[in-house]
Amino acid sequence: MTARFLSPKPHGMDGSQLHASSHLLELAEPLPLDGGQALPGVRISYETYGTLNADRSNAILICHALTGDQHVASPHPITGKPGWWVRMVGPGKPIDTDRFHVICANVLGSCMGTTGPASPAGDGKPWAMRFPVITIRDMVRGHVALLDALGIARLHAVVGGSMGGMQALSLAANWPERAGAVLVIASTARHSAQNIAFHEVGRQAIMADPKWKNGDYYGSGKGPENGLAVARMAAHITYLSEEGMHEKFGRRLQNREAKTFGFDADFQVESYLRHQGLSFTDRFDANSYLYITRAMDYFDLAEEHGGRLAQAFAGATARFCLVSFDTDWLYPTAESRAIAHALNAAGAPVSFVELSAPFGHDSFLLDVPTLDRVIAGFLGS
Amino acid sequence: MTARFLSPKPHGMDGSQLHASSHLLELAEPLPLDGGQALPGVRISYETYGTLNADRSNAILICHALTGDQHVASPHPITGKPGWWVRMVGPGKPIDTDRFHVICANVLGSCMGTTGPASPAGDGKPWAMRFPVITIRDMVRGHVALLDALGIARLHAVVGGSMGGMQALSLAANWPERAGAVLVIASTARHSAQNIAFHEVGRQAIMADPKWKNGDYYGSGKGPENGLAVARMAAHITYLSEEGMHEKFGRRLQNREAKTFGFDADFQVESYLRHQGLSFTDRFDANSYLYITRAMDYFDLAEEHGGRLAQAFAGATARFCLVSFDTDWLYPTAESRAIAHALNAAGAPVSFVELSAPFGHDSFLLDVPTLDRVIAGFLGS
Repeated sequence: MTARFLSPKPHGMDGSQLHASSHLLELAEPLPLDGGQALPGVRISYETYGTLNADRSNAILICHALTGDQHVASPHPITGKPGWWVRMVGPGKPIDTDRFHVICANVLGSCMGTTGPASPAGDGKPWAMRFPVITIRDMVRGHVALLDALGIARLHAVVGGSMGGMQALSLAANWPERAGAVLVIASTARHSAQNIAFHEVGRQAIMADPKWKNGDYYGSGKGPENGLAVARMAAHITYLSEEGMHEKFGRRLQNREAKTFGFDADFQVESYLRHQGLSFTDRFDANSYLYITRAMDYFDLAEEHGGRLAQAFAGATARFCLVSFDTDWLYPTAESRAIAHALNAAGAPVSFVELSAPFGHDSFLLDVPTLDRVIAGFLGS
Repeated sequence: MTARFLSPKPHGMDGSQLHASSHLLELAEPLPLDGGQALPGVRISYETYGTLNADRSNAILICHALTGDQHVASPHPITGKPGWWVRMVGPGKPIDTDRFHVICANVLGSCMGTTGPASPAGDGKPWAMRFPVITIRDMVRGHVALLDALGIARLHAVVGGSMGGMQALSLAANWPERAGAVLVIASTARHSAQNIAFHEVGRQAIMADPKWKNGDYYGSGKGPENGLAVARMAAHITYLSEEGMHEKFGRRLQNREAKTFGFDADFQVESYLRHQGLSFTDRFDANSYLYITRAMDYFDLAEEHGGRLAQAFAGATARFCLVSFDTDWLYPTAESRAIAHALNAAGAPVSFVELSAPFGHDSFLLDVPTLDRVIAGFLGS
């Protein structure tokens, strides 16, 4: 597949942030999709860190989560916040940019530069709900097209947490020759009924917002911000542990001495959730939220491979490492264990560790030193 | 407190339903509330089953849950469905109407006849958001006023599941002489941060619906049905267990052979949740949902009693029975255990059992034969 690199936009450097290069690739050929269509004019926005070595063997692809993006270790262009994994990616860090060439691409369907529902279709208008429903494997097709364009035949490793882990698993199953190591953190090989249920609540909240307008809200002022905020609030609860929420908020009141006997955010946890919901709408497109949650709900790696998860890994050539967190109730340890068993059955080398951390699913993004050591050890060996 | 019994409306009988008497009581004096106000003209809609004995000692008060009502064992007047606890209440059933006089009152703030936000205020217009924020204890004040009007000094028992259990605990703590036995099922002595968080999502979904109109939607066509449906969907997930959802739905598709690559309800769990959300709006008032969830979030029995839960039960004169379910993650067993410990510390007789049932929080409403035996044994002894 031929492709065209559009103008790279070099980042500035500051003391706390790693030097990142931003790039935009346009695929020359339509991208085939699991739904049967082929998507023309796909652009992939990605960042790189560190230097690709001469034989192109030191690349690590980091796959981001549902609401993540390519700014893994560079400031977010809208919020100005540090990259979402700046604690993990950099010189001397567990994913060491002195040794590795790190690539992180915004996924297909998202809204940070890669083609998604907000991007112009052939008629120049946004795709909106004309955008095809995509899958996790379609996202990975985009990644593989990027690797092809970069001339990277085999990654040193593919790494991802949550939905990023699904992409890593999909790459290992469908393009087994493309990675030498696969690191999957706080993830699953299929979305459970409860996972689907939470996403469906979020989608219904968005679609119930009259400003959604069947997805045609672009250029007409504010989109379905209220619905998107509610969706984010519901999802956010699943990212934290019950114990973690109790530790962080308990029943403490927000800047007041007593309950108000009203409907303001009396409790800190209410104030926190409202903030999480509202701030999310500044940086994320509601239609992208619909499409990406749908892709996650459709994800079932065993189903794609004859109903047996071990079959998915029949051609595996990589080393695998699976990490779960004991307080993650979104993708609990049993999900990682099932993947480990399937890899064992397929004869693939796999290490699996459940880490203890109080932050629930979000542990993969937060200060969990044992995770740093697991990642550094697995990638460095 | 004097009070006036308004016209009772006798129910018809059919083969499957118990004969119930519907009643409406109007309190003569304003009901004092925890928020400091006193609510005038409170009406309490309630049902009774079985015969009150001569010394009025055989009454059992059943307290209903968030979206429940007084139709504990009679058909719901809107949906036509059997009463919500018809399996538990009736002649020869665990709550035996051949022996006991069963009373179930719609709680203050609700929408099935007892005064709530949809009821007319002094100016003849609906209270809407002018309705005062109430507490669980305020609901119980309503129950106590009803018992006073009925001349029932001491209940044989007060029984409740979920929010009904909170009312039973509040009665035992604040009116300890009014019940000889207290049965609390799948409940808690305080709402956790996660409990509050889920309710806040629901409230924000309702308030984000433009048809909510700051609560002034009465008489102007449809209310915030979309928001209320989303709130119900989010809550409904918390009523089921992850395992239960997996058993019931898994990833099975809804009346189709393959995924549609669209946003219809491909999965059974999506279809089920949408149905739960939409059907709920036919029978429940959105403002009542706001007020009752707020009352639950405000509930903290220890806080009301100097911060020590045991102190809440210092004057207890009742026998207690606590029941939890092993798959209930809304009010998990640890919450019941904490109540049992507090009762032990207060020197109150208490039995506590965790039952195994696959249905999560909803187990108290469903076919769990061990629950029947626990209830029959506790009430009959």
